[in-house]
Amino acid sequence: MAILDPNAERRCRDSFARQQAMTTIGASVLSVAAGEVELAMPFSEKLTQQHGFIHAGIVTMLCDTACGFAALSLMPEDAAVLTTEFKVNLLSPAIGERLIARGKVVRPGRKLMVCLGEVFAEEGGKRKQVALMTASMMVMDTSTGLRD
Amino acid sequence: MAILDPNAERRCRDSFARQQAMTTIGASVLSVAAGEVELAMPFSEKLTQQHGFIHAGIVTMLCDTACGFAALSLMPEDAAVLTTEFKVNLLSPAIGERLIARGKVVRPGRKLMVCLGEVFAEEGGKRKQVALMTASMMVMDTSTGLRD
Amino acid sequence: MAILDPNAERRCRDSFARQQAMTTIGASVLSVAAGEVELAMPFSEKLTQQHGFIHAGIVTMLCDTACGFAALSLMPEDAAVLTTEFKVNLLSPAIGERLIARGKVVRPGRKLMVCLGEVFAEEGGKRKQVALMTASMMVMDTSTGLRD
Amino acid sequence: MAILDPNAERRCRDSFARQQAMTTIGASVLSVAAGEVELAMPFSEKLTQQHGFIHAGIVTMLCDTACGFAALSLMPEDAAVLTTEFKVNLLSPAIGERLIARGKVVRPGRKLMVCLGEVFAEEGGKRKQVALMTASMMVMDTSTGLRD
Repeated sequence: MAILDPNAERRCRDSFARQQAMTTIGASVLSVAAGEVELAMPFSEKLTQQHGFIHAGIVTMLCDTACGFAALSLMPEDAAVLTTEFKVNLLSPAIGERLIARGKVVRPGRKLMVCLGEVFAEEGGKRKQVALMTASMMVMDTSTGLRD
Repeated sequence: MAILDPNAERRCRDSFARQQAMTTIGASVLSVAAGEVELAMPFSEKLTQQHGFIHAGIVTMLCDTACGFAALSLMPEDAAVLTTEFKVNLLSPAIGERLIARGKVVRPGRKLMVCLGEVFAEEGGKRKQVALMTASMMVMDTSTGLRD
Repeated sequence: MAILDPNAERRCRDSFARQQAMTTIGASVLSVAAGEVELAMPFSEKLTQQHGFIHAGIVTMLCDTACGFAALSLMPEDAAVLTTEFKVNLLSPAIGERLIARGKVVRPGRKLMVCLGEVFAEEGGKRKQVALMTASMMVMDTSTGLRD
Repeated sequence: MAILDPNAERRCRDSFARQQAMTTIGASVLSVAAGEVELAMPFSEKLTQQHGFIHAGIVTMLCDTACGFAALSLMPEDAAVLTTEFKVNLLSPAIGERLIARGKVVRPGRKLMVCLGEVFAEEGGKRKQVALMTASMMVMDTSTGLRD
């Protein structure tokens, strides 16, 4: 994988900070590398579905963001990132002390980047995988008015 | 499609009420029919990503819940519903006064139900589709400890 | 949906004729409209999996092609179409006299077109849906060397 | 991952041999391990789409079969395997001397197994990834009449 552009980590962290949804769910950035980003989120009852697990949509939100920033870390300075599609297989109930989402770029295309995402539930220092994502991230140019 | 079981609407609304995530995003039930459920959610800046659109994870959460309850509306009284996978194509930025998600059962299997979900952004009385989902919902029996 | 460009049907049929894989499976074009294409394929034992059903990959191939040409029918004359991703839910065993695949454009973007595909098995004049697809089709320009 | 059941390799190879679609595309089994199967297929013009690449449906067919047998290798003797859904991201044109598909079980559930599949095009001893799949395989019991 390419070396991390010195500006890429700053761009990802700045863009993350502008995502109010990330603040709402209490998410934070664990690490930013070239084409790979890890985020974390503490368990919260406010984000549960009817059986007491974190809602699949929240699991997806964390993982989509990790994949999006993994893609952004490899994009030129004047590009913005937009998710065009993702698919999530839910492997186990999302329950534990916190969730960790890791997004990796599998195919860094010029127009589309394909990412693989994994979400783990952490409890007592142990991790169990709860979700598997594949996603397409579009490289948007500045003529669209989007910035990252 | 089958006629709505007289208990099904109550079960869906009760299960919806136990989803704290739905309260957190301000979602409400618009309608429950046999194999088809509509939910709504007002726009909120707290749920936006970095470009000011509702986060794709929130769009997904609303649509997954609509699909899950569409499936639950066709399940036997002693079954619970669990999403095993979904895929979402994002068609337009999720921005407007509110989002409407409609979930429909396409194939009501005994073990797995396949659903089609659509999300629309509403603005000034006009609707624009923002997302398209396909999802698999597993029919869980009570031996799992899950209830709906 | 837009009116069909007078050249679009010819382009789709010519491009279809160049797909040797379509000849191999015995597929034919049923109809081409603006943003909607139907293909058919007779049942063949040569295309079955271990239980005697048409292999899911063949079902996918027919549907992907229907979606691709549905997208191509809305593209400018100098563009080519390339599938970037699809997801298929298999609803019933693909068995019968023939398969019919219908692809429709749901969102005709300038760079990406999102399609919905359905495959039916026909037997004694009755149709049963066997698969549901969502797919992304990229609008490729001629600088890539691709032609359609 | 579990140790390979002594009968599992034979079951996978027998079931593969009953897939006429695999004979039609010239596919063969490279290896069977517990939860991981590799298949190969030579390039053939008969399986190409309009630009001369192997059709995405054929790439999918090979990968779906690899994932299905990876799942079957971990199933009890009296179970059969049925794909319920898959999603494929196409990463590069499928062109070269042969294709290699590798399927791995990511989550060996009792009712559903989730698999990750990768397809590579091989040319002059070098491999390039052309597709990424995630798939759900249902564990079918013998009451359905299916055997593997």
